[in-house]
Amino acid sequence: MAESKLEIQMLHDRLLVKAVPDKSERRSSAGLVIPDTVKLATRLAWGEVRGAGTGARHVKTGDRVLFDPEEQGEVELNGERYVILRERDVHAIANEAPERGTGLYL
Amino acid sequence: MAESKLEIQMLHDRLLVKAVPDKSERRSSAGLVIPDTVKLATRLAWGEVRGAGTGARHVKTGDRVLFDPEEQGEVELNGERYVILRERDVHAIANEAPERGTGLYL
Amino acid sequence: MAESKLEIQMLHDRLLVKAVPDKSERRSSAGLVIPDTVKLATRLAWGEVRGAGTGARHVKTGDRVLFDPEEQGEVELNGERYVILRERDVHAIANEAPERGTGLYL
Amino acid sequence: MAESKLEIQMLHDRLLVKAVPDKSERRSSAGLVIPDTVKLATRLAWGEVRGAGTGARHVKTGDRVLFDPEEQGEVELNGERYVILRERDVHAIANEAPERGTGLYL
Amino acid sequence: MAESKLEIQMLHDRLLVKAVPDKSERRSSAGLVIPDTVKLATRLAWGEVRGAGTGARHVKTGDRVLFDPEEQGEVELNGERYVILRERDVHAIANEAPERGTGLYL
Amino acid sequence: MAESKLEIQMLHDRLLVKAVPDKSERRSSAGLVIPDTVKLATRLAWGEVRGAGTGARHVKTGDRVLFDPEEQGEVELNGERYVILRERDVHAIANEAPERGTGLYL
Amino acid sequence: MAESKLEIQMLHDRLLVKAVPDKSERRSSAGLVIPDTVKLATRLAWGEVRGAGTGARHVKTGDRVLFDPEEQGEVELNGERYVILRERDVHAIANEAPERGTGLYL
Repeated sequence: MAESKLEIQMLHDRLLVKAVPDKSERRSSAGLVIPDTVKLATRLAWGEVRGAGTGARHVKTGDRVLFDPEEQGEVELNGERYVILRERDVHAIANEAPERGTGLYL
Repeated sequence: MAESKLEIQMLHDRLLVKAVPDKSERRSSAGLVIPDTVKLATRLAWGEVRGAGTGARHVKTGDRVLFDPEEQGEVELNGERYVILRERDVHAIANEAPERGTGLYL
Repeated sequence: MAESKLEIQMLHDRLLVKAVPDKSERRSSAGLVIPDTVKLATRLAWGEVRGAGTGARHVKTGDRVLFDPEEQGEVELNGERYVILRERDVHAIANEAPERGTGLYL
Repeated sequence: MAESKLEIQMLHDRLLVKAVPDKSERRSSAGLVIPDTVKLATRLAWGEVRGAGTGARHVKTGDRVLFDPEEQGEVELNGERYVILRERDVHAIANEAPERGTGLYL
Repeated sequence: MAESKLEIQMLHDRLLVKAVPDKSERRSSAGLVIPDTVKLATRLAWGEVRGAGTGARHVKTGDRVLFDPEEQGEVELNGERYVILRERDVHAIANEAPERGTGLYL
Repeated sequence: MAESKLEIQMLHDRLLVKAVPDKSERRSSAGLVIPDTVKLATRLAWGEVRGAGTGARHVKTGDRVLFDPEEQGEVELNGERYVILRERDVHAIANEAPERGTGLYL
Repeated sequence: MAESKLEIQMLHDRLLVKAVPDKSERRSSAGLVIPDTVKLATRLAWGEVRGAGTGARHVKTGDRVLFDPEEQGEVELNGERYVILRERDVHAIANEAPERGTGLYL
């Protein structure tokens, strides 16, 4: 299919994010796997940024971002599913040269 | 019917948008078609801008826009159905020369 | 009945609007008439402005305005029913010389 | 009963308003009386201003004001019932020399 | 009991108010007593100010104030019950020399 | 147990408050004890300030404060239970030299 | 497993916090253990800060923080569970040299 000429741009501080599957299971401190149905705190998720609006100050394409996956806008592009975030809703980022790293790694 | 002399103008940052039918079906990563009844994240939709108010800064007539189709105002003009959006509710645009493209195409 | 001397003035950005009956029926793209009971997007309505407060910047008496008819204030004057709107809630206007027309006509 | 020396003053932009009975009945355009039980738009009411706070800019004692009678504060003074409004909630006024009349009369 | 040395001061724009019993009964214009159970507009109440914070601009100790008695904070001091109000929630005052009287008296 | 070296500091305008037991019972003006189950106005409570953040302007350690005990954050320190308040939620204070006393004493 | 190169950084005023287990049981003043099911005030919790965004003014890595554990975002990193807080939601801190200590120790 010839490349459509309509290139996508994010507006304001919006981010186009590809969710990264979460291998970790919830275990209580006693090691028991906690099924998701148990309403604990909100489980945050990591995703990779594939596009950022001109209003995004701290996050750039290629960064991993930590966000609340519930109630986010979702769009399908060329068979891939993406989530749309606002930069202000991003809790943390992970990349190879953070400005102020925590010493913790993804 | 003689052309009515009352020409329409959008106010403030409002956009008159013609929804573009969404051919993609929701598939789980295992390829299963996910019926819309399953409450996932909000499915965003694309539409084409047919009018923009003087307050619209980033979006112009002819652009494609990505928006949340739920609970939007709708109007019928000359047999065609349009949705009314505010520019601030637009997540992304697509056109032939975006200011900061994502490298992804519609 | 002798003309009462109490002339009405709208306050702030409020508009006195005479709703214009909506002849269009909702048809699905396949042409089926969609009864109003089906909860679709909010159907907007057109009305004619019969009075505007000093705070109204873009709308003037005689303009047609596009608005959401649900939950608006209503008043009866000399047997006619009017709706009270705020200019900020008006989506679009239609008149003979709009500042930035869409090329679409009522 | 000797005149009590405690004179009442409205604060900020508050108005003391005597509701004016509404003779008009709701009729559908086909002339049928629409009982109030039918949940239509909010029926606004007229009242006469008997007191205005120093913060009231556009409304003065003696003006008629158009307001939403639901959920307003009510007080009884010397056997008369009044409603307390804020000027910002007043839709329209009617008096003998409005600054920008609509040409419609009460 | 020896006078405790802890004197009370109201903070910000808060008022310490002693509710004044309301002798008036609600009567419909036809004179029928309307029981309080009938959900009418909110019945406002008068009270006397016994203390005012430094942030109170228009109200002073000794003034009568008109307020909405529902959902207010209440405190008992030396066997007397008081209500705590914020000046911004006071609709009207009554005293012997109001700045802009309504000509109506308590 | 050796004194832990981690000393506590309140942040912003937060206050660490030790609730003071309330000996007063609610009596109707006819003297009947009103059980707490009867939903009256919100009963406020007094407490003593044991710590104040740098953002607290009017309240200092040692003051008594009047506050709404419902839905406050609670913490246990060395076997004592404290409530955490924000200064803006404090209605009144009581101490030996208030800036603007009401003449009423705790 | 080779150290991943993606180092984590908190954004804005967000804090990465490791909850500290709470040994204290709720006892009524009469010494009875109060089960958590009894809906009292919100029980706050202590945690240790493992990362702070550039927007955090008062809290730094290593501080203990007092916060409301309900409805917080949670993330698992290298088998450890953390909570994400905003500095503005932190009630108090504890460290060895607070700017304005309360004289109370953790």
